[in-house]
Amino acid sequence: MRAIKESIAEWFRSLQDDICNGLEHADGAGKFHQDLWDRPGGGGGRSRIMTNGGVIAKGGVNFSAVNGKTPEKILQALQIDDADFFATGVSIVIHPENPWVPIIHMNVRYFEMSNGIYWFGGGIDLTPHYVYPDDARFFHQQLKDTCDQFGGTLYSKFKKWADDYFFIKHRNETRGIGGIFFDRLTEQHDMTFDQVLDFTQAVGKTFLPTYAELISRNQNKAFDESHKTWQRLRRGRYVEFNLVYDKGTKFGLDTDGRTESILMSMPPQADWVYDYRPESDSLEAQSLGYLKKGIDWV
Amino acid sequence: MRAIKESIAEWFRSLQDDICNGLEHADGAGKFHQDLWDRPGGGGGRSRIMTNGGVIAKGGVNFSAVNGKTPEKILQALQIDDADFFATGVSIVIHPENPWVPIIHMNVRYFEMSNGIYWFGGGIDLTPHYVYPDDARFFHQQLKDTCDQFGGTLYSKFKKWADDYFFIKHRNETRGIGGIFFDRLTEQHDMTFDQVLDFTQAVGKTFLPTYAELISRNQNKAFDESHKTWQRLRRGRYVEFNLVYDKGTKFGLDTDGRTESILMSMPPQADWVYDYRPESDSLEAQSLGYLKKGIDWV
Repeated sequence: MRAIKESIAEWFRSLQDDICNGLEHADGAGKFHQDLWDRPGGGGGRSRIMTNGGVIAKGGVNFSAVNGKTPEKILQALQIDDADFFATGVSIVIHPENPWVPIIHMNVRYFEMSNGIYWFGGGIDLTPHYVYPDDARFFHQQLKDTCDQFGGTLYSKFKKWADDYFFIKHRNETRGIGGIFFDRLTEQHDMTFDQVLDFTQAVGKTFLPTYAELISRNQNKAFDESHKTWQRLRRGRYVEFNLVYDKGTKFGLDTDGRTESILMSMPPQADWVYDYRPESDSLEAQSLGYLKKGIDWV
Repeated sequence: MRAIKESIAEWFRSLQDDICNGLEHADGAGKFHQDLWDRPGGGGGRSRIMTNGGVIAKGGVNFSAVNGKTPEKILQALQIDDADFFATGVSIVIHPENPWVPIIHMNVRYFEMSNGIYWFGGGIDLTPHYVYPDDARFFHQQLKDTCDQFGGTLYSKFKKWADDYFFIKHRNETRGIGGIFFDRLTEQHDMTFDQVLDFTQAVGKTFLPTYAELISRNQNKAFDESHKTWQRLRRGRYVEFNLVYDKGTKFGLDTDGRTESILMSMPPQADWVYDYRPESDSLEAQSLGYLKKGIDWV
């Protein structure tokens, strides 16, 4: 495996390029600003941020490839004394300006250690401020089509994993309508290393056409201040999930990762209103009704 | 001790009343809205929230007195098999509308278990959006005056504790200018139970005159949109501290506390801007310069 880690990183780097180009095209006005950074312990990254675009209010598409001594927290979790690690991946969070366009998150990543342990992880999930069943079905069908190329059980397994992972326990709400999530995926009885790599890359390639379609469907819908207010409240929930529960965020902050790259996931603006309850039967209340586990969208 | 736990709760309840009355007077326009709530496992509380007042944009003054089986997390931390618990306290977070008025937080609490273990905890700390040394000195002097009534070493000990506790590690910033913080305070060689109780109550009584003075000094200062923008960025940091680090918030969310009461600490609105850096020598940059540990304000 170790011989190919650089080629995996290179593939992720080109995925970042393709997605940034595609998002700039879909946005129509905004451009990504790039920051190159080095990690003191080894490796570094390319953070790319768009602010105040035509569609994207604040979004990040980050690539990193880092290496060095494995952080103590991982060694403890794996009950290993010492090893070097290499990790590379692409992380995306897009907060749109128009509340009818959903927030989206994607991550694909590869991790390996000098003792031979390795795995892939990632997923794509959608957080609409307003849930449209048609868009939710389209989104999940896209993910299912990608999964189904690699085995008929992957979608249902990784869809459930996303439902369980993207859950705001203290609100008893899912973060959005889920998607797919997988972690520590490695070669196994029915998937070779190459197939796991291919699957992870296929997830990465699913992002752009899927989100471009969702932008295209919704970017010209009119909105008023009441829709923006609801958007900011939902962004508040996004903040709650990411800062209270998200393992990648916690791990990054715990291990002195680059704070500005990790917290690119924060929305441009978020509101909190004490004990806010939308009017019953409103679009907002209907959307809340979809924020639960186990909805079969396809 | 157990005979007096109800009288301690009663004192906290009246502290909540006094503070709410005093804050309504200082605010001049807003009124607190009260929610009574019951805890399924035992006890309950009175949450009081003010929104869109004359000075207070969003603030909470919460009382609770809860009891029942001690949560597993506390039993584990104390290495105890089983015990009932009783906990009562008042928690306050005030987010003002005018960015020249500081955010303030206070908590005073009492905890006891059926095995005889008990302690007091609490503190007051200030988070100015713009740090004025004069106000910071006044604030810390008020706290020192209260502490000094109970022993000459308390202020420096509890001031350091606040510096260490209210620290946003991933930003390398303190949350604000600190204050005092203490936990698991119990009778000891130089303080009887009654003195510890008196001290905790004295801290509670220090809140209102201190914050009323800070409101009075700053509430009529003019501000523009640039000051509001800075306020929302600082509120974003407040969110980061409370959701990532604050032990009370984490414990409350972990143990199925009342979410709306716990998260009354969230600001009405918060912003995030990627890699924001204020102009050097600006008021904003000067304020950031004060957000570090170990400043001796008195």
